[in-house]
Amino acid sequence: MNQEELFFNCVGVVGVGLIGASFALAMRERRLAREIWGYSATGRSARKALELGIIDRQCKTLSELARNCDFILVSTPVLSIPPILKSLSLEVGKDTIVTDGGSVKSFVKECSSLFKFNNFIGSHPIAGTEKSGPEAGFSSLFDGSVCIVTPLEESDLNKYNTVCRVWESLGMNIVSMAPEAHDIVMAEVSHMPHAIAFSIVYAVKDKYYDGKRVTDFAGGGFKDFTRIAKSDATMWADIFLSNSKNILSSIEDFKEALNCLSQVIEKGDRKGIEDFILTARDVLLKNGKK
Amino acid sequence: MNQEELFFNCVGVVGVGLIGASFALAMRERRLAREIWGYSATGRSARKALELGIIDRQCKTLSELARNCDFILVSTPVLSIPPILKSLSLEVGKDTIVTDGGSVKSFVKECSSLFKFNNFIGSHPIAGTEKSGPEAGFSSLFDGSVCIVTPLEESDLNKYNTVCRVWESLGMNIVSMAPEAHDIVMAEVSHMPHAIAFSIVYAVKDKYYDGKRVTDFAGGGFKDFTRIAKSDATMWADIFLSNSKNILSSIEDFKEALNCLSQVIEKGDRKGIEDFILTARDVLLKNGKK
Repeated sequence: MNQEELFFNCVGVVGVGLIGASFALAMRERRLAREIWGYSATGRSARKALELGIIDRQCKTLSELARNCDFILVSTPVLSIPPILKSLSLEVGKDTIVTDGGSVKSFVKECSSLFKFNNFIGSHPIAGTEKSGPEAGFSSLFDGSVCIVTPLEESDLNKYNTVCRVWESLGMNIVSMAPEAHDIVMAEVSHMPHAIAFSIVYAVKDKYYDGKRVTDFAGGGFKDFTRIAKSDATMWADIFLSNSKNILSSIEDFKEALNCLSQVIEKGDRKGIEDFILTARDVLLKNGKK
Repeated sequence: MNQEELFFNCVGVVGVGLIGASFALAMRERRLAREIWGYSATGRSARKALELGIIDRQCKTLSELARNCDFILVSTPVLSIPPILKSLSLEVGKDTIVTDGGSVKSFVKECSSLFKFNNFIGSHPIAGTEKSGPEAGFSSLFDGSVCIVTPLEESDLNKYNTVCRVWESLGMNIVSMAPEAHDIVMAEVSHMPHAIAFSIVYAVKDKYYDGKRVTDFAGGGFKDFTRIAKSDATMWADIFLSNSKNILSSIEDFKEALNCLSQVIEKGDRKGIEDFILTARDVLLKNGKK
């Protein structure tokens, strides 16, 4: 890797779904890689990506990627990442850089220590849609969104800088955070809200009016809510399982807020209701300012 | 009113906000009214609507509307509707048709009985955006959405048919429902989800990372959620107050669902989590089919 010019001979993508395929397309569009190779456990997503011209080669083994690529992105569901990193760690050379796209970062510390050459830097590009699979990928997915990179004290500074430059080149704004902080923040703004979206829809599952589901009478607001409830079940089971402590704690705080609102509604306390709503609006309007 | 051709000499709009202004624009675009008059309690929204050419005249009193219009829409926040209907009921003639756009229908029975000539038919066009005021109005707001009309046994069939034809002319699909059923269904698909959206944002109000609000790190999912949390506080306080019993009951059912999900997360029960998510997805995919 040349420090001045960002360019890789061979980029590897493990798990060529929405994130992996979009990454490959974006890297190619910006001419950041000579070749892009892909691998997926069942072979399905990598084969599809090859057919669609998203990757140049489908690898049969992780070894093939580990031995040939100078930059590797692992973009599988979260619980599959640690065993893949373990495999890669056995064969990557000194200069190979490995990162991931996982929405939970609890495994970063343990997995980093497996790599002899400090090859691994965790990252989480906060981008996605409710769709999945390589056919859902598009090159501008990352443009304008935040990418959280989670280095450790012992991380290699050059490798960390390269990971940041890659995501920046794809249009992302980098935020650096410790893995533990990442998992707390994501529980609040992503994992807990998803748990709630699934629960809202689950709560009305047996509710009908005149032979129609009540959701038939939903306006725009409900549809916004439930778009994210269509997200992939495997991916979200992995997230809930690997960040359970923080998610359960965010859910408790949410339930407390909901109880406050329920109480003022029950009391018929108009001022209490308005204050609650205005406080929420204020959070959104002052977004980011303390 | 001619039964064959839908056309009014003078249409009145009470409360010329997003709904009232969009109604006026849509009626004018479809040439369904010779003139459109407006009234608002403080005069602000009607004056603005007159300036924007949305209405032809700003009335100083409700009497002026009641004595001159052949079709009147009351599109104010819910708790303001009953006193307005009471005023109108004192002066409207035999053939005048009065409807409203309220999101709660608990007042329909009592208010209907005030009208000597069965003038009032309740309706709820399920359309809107998170914006408010006449300047936010646009003529296609109602197109393709559902309008729930809530007649009573004693309602005038001709007047009911005319109200349905008006909303249909603006592109809406009519569903007829008793007022009580309307309030139960709306608690499920609109009021409870709004209470939750406000509560999610309220729950993170004091959460910061590195001097920034955690909402700064939110992806698309959270933004979808919080769009509706920007809705008008007065309007929503009115809704929460006038449909409190049904809303609190929907919130209880939601909390039960959320507790189910929390329990399987806490137990690390992968199958339980996936089943929960897949059940929710299934509700959305089979939308409307029992």
